Amino acid sequence: MPASYASRFDGISGSAIRDIFRLLTNPSIISFAGGNPASSALEPELISRLAQEALAENGVNILQYGQTEGYAPLRQSAAEFFRHNAVEARPDQVLPLVGSQQGLDLICKALINPGDAMLVESPAFLGALQTFKLYQARLVPIEMDEGGAIVEDIEKKIIAERPKLIYLIPTFQNPTGRTLALERRRRVARLANEYGVTLIEDDPYCDLRYRGEALPAIKSFDQGDNVLYLNSFSKIISPGLRVAAAVCTDEELMRKLIIGKQSTDVHSPTLNQAIIDKYLRSGLLEGHIKQICASYAAQMQKMQEMLEGFPKSVRFTRPDGGIFLWCELPKGFDATKLLPEATKRGVAYIPGDHFFALPGGHHNSLRLNFSNASLESIEKGMTLLKGLFVDQGL
Amino acid sequence: MPASYASRFDGISGSAIRDIFRLLTNPSIISFAGGNPASSALEPELISRLAQEALAENGVNILQYGQTEGYAPLRQSAAEFFRHNAVEARPDQVLPLVGSQQGLDLICKALINPGDAMLVESPAFLGALQTFKLYQARLVPIEMDEGGAIVEDIEKKIIAERPKLIYLIPTFQNPTGRTLALERRRRVARLANEYGVTLIEDDPYCDLRYRGEALPAIKSFDQGDNVLYLNSFSKIISPGLRVAAAVCTDEELMRKLIIGKQSTDVHSPTLNQAIIDKYLRSGLLEGHIKQICASYAAQMQKMQEMLEGFPKSVRFTRPDGGIFLWCELPKGFDATKLLPEATKRGVAYIPGDHFFALPGGHHNSLRLNFSNASLESIEKGMTLLKGLFVDQGL
Repeated sequence: MPASYASRFDGISGSAIRDIFRLLTNPSIISFAGGNPASSALEPELISRLAQEALAENGVNILQYGQTEGYAPLRQSAAEFFRHNAVEARPDQVLPLVGSQQGLDLICKALINPGDAMLVESPAFLGALQTFKLYQARLVPIEMDEGGAIVEDIEKKIIAERPKLIYLIPTFQNPTGRTLALERRRRVARLANEYGVTLIEDDPYCDLRYRGEALPAIKSFDQGDNVLYLNSFSKIISPGLRVAAAVCTDEELMRKLIIGKQSTDVHSPTLNQAIIDKYLRSGLLEGHIKQICASYAAQMQKMQEMLEGFPKSVRFTRPDGGIFLWCELPKGFDATKLLPEATKRGVAYIPGDHFFALPGGHHNSLRLNFSNASLESIEKGMTLLKGLFVDQGL
Repeated sequence: MPASYASRFDGISGSAIRDIFRLLTNPSIISFAGGNPASSALEPELISRLAQEALAENGVNILQYGQTEGYAPLRQSAAEFFRHNAVEARPDQVLPLVGSQQGLDLICKALINPGDAMLVESPAFLGALQTFKLYQARLVPIEMDEGGAIVEDIEKKIIAERPKLIYLIPTFQNPTGRTLALERRRRVARLANEYGVTLIEDDPYCDLRYRGEALPAIKSFDQGDNVLYLNSFSKIISPGLRVAAAVCTDEELMRKLIIGKQSTDVHSPTLNQAIIDKYLRSGLLEGHIKQICASYAAQMQKMQEMLEGFPKSVRFTRPDGGIFLWCELPKGFDATKLLPEATKRGVAYIPGDHFFALPGGHHNSLRLNFSNASLESIEKGMTLLKGLFVDQGL
């Protein structure tokens, strides 16, 4: 055993979530715990064909060392693709990543000293919280309502805490499914510009919209290069390929991200970037997204119908898209304590506690994922969940 | 521009090397600067076939989220493969990585607090030095001779500096090509065990041996789980696929590496792991390695023959394998200052300065790579280099 570990690991156990995910390898448990796209939405034959084409056309380039800045054709096609979210960027402002998670790691590497403040939604994506904690950021929760993060609270905390970073998932947020309202997007961009704070806009779910009109990204309102935009191909093409991209219009910050990436993995695997590039240029993506949206919409609706059959004291979100619902039981219920019994009965979720930067007071909440469960499994799993909660006195 | 960057970037410019590599995109320059395998050794057709097979057999699993711990078949086949270096590990002690560089990042993440001491060879691999500097390690150079790092100096500096880590490339070292002698391997493992210091054994070149007998890895002498072994498929299969693996027999450290990796990229791309796994199981790798060794041996010999035609005041290493030669000009020559003129004449190298943890006194050295240059290019490039040095008064 090494003499001592780095202090960034103090208080990091990583065990709770890892234990939950270990449970999910048990195929007899209906899992609403993950954040996986539907396995039926994955396209091994198409990906295989795109890989063959890429290697046939450009094989030596793909297999040789590449540039840290990324595979040039993908920088171009991704820049083009992001336009539909109103994100305007030149190819050299796009940095391909090994998943958006790498973007979170690199932006922290560039900016965060131990003790620096960061504003995070409350609740927030747990994988992001773990990254921020490993950089020993001081996490300051932002209040939310049905319209997403509350801008007045952001401004108050910018003034009080002088944060280095603000982290938001504005569209179909993980874990709540909530979407930041249009006017708030404009205002939060203005705050980032005015106070010179870097805002991370993490946007992996924006294309999974089942109703209502698409909203422009916060990045589209950025007048001062303060917004770092992250998007991922994990939810719409494949998470296993691990391809995402950052849009960074601040040149000096981009340079830091690239140096950080160089020292982290030299460059992203080129074959994977080439596959995604070919997919983006194939003209097939729009149809594929329509198809998965149709399925996910039905799955979300089924889960909400089932929740409507729970006692009225159970509250849940009604998102316009994404892959998650957020559920609140009456005070006194403890989703963490109930999880072992839930999995014993054959259903899993993630207790809400894990999504909060600061401990306490959220034991009665849970996150439910519907994208990787059939209508039948949703019916069965939600029936099991209702039975459990009712048996506990709901 | 963000308010301020993290202090880990103080003094990190990353510019010198990046500028050199930018030069290399100019195809009219003969480059001995990189560390690339020969482009002719890359096998797009075979890789394409392996990708097709993997996706046909196991496509959904490959495209869905995978485990941070890595793709189970590769953990098994890599553990098996490492046996030929006398590294004995169970599959659960193998962690697939996005290049060995990621192993360096993760071990620093697990162990290094700013100011912690690390022992590094002098000279050492510059990509590693950059990673260590970004973790604000205090780098302590170890003296070397023709037999590699000097063990007495390591022990002296362990006692004086109490380092958290020792970093060695024991076989065909980057940049010198030197190999740590057998008895030193045994002794350095014993030091790591005795003083409880973690030793990183970075071993990407071990299979590129052109003469002499293979030496067992330092890891094979590790009696106390203090040696973290890194190996890569970049030099023998493809760097663009970005697949390497760590062997870590310390369970608690492995857990920290996995948590660190989870927060960095969630998991390595599965398709790439599956391709390497299939290659390892194909029975084709041994023949492929024999073939590239035959070419590289001829390239090394050609470069050495050319160096023998330089004035006798030029000294250079005579490795038994690998892809680099280390070259020392007489004192007074400055390889950094001469580089612009070299590239103007059509040849590039990396000035030796970049490979030293502490500045100063190494201006007369340079690293030459021969693996990605034809015999003809080597003849031509070395003639240009000789002309330049002679014109400068060599």
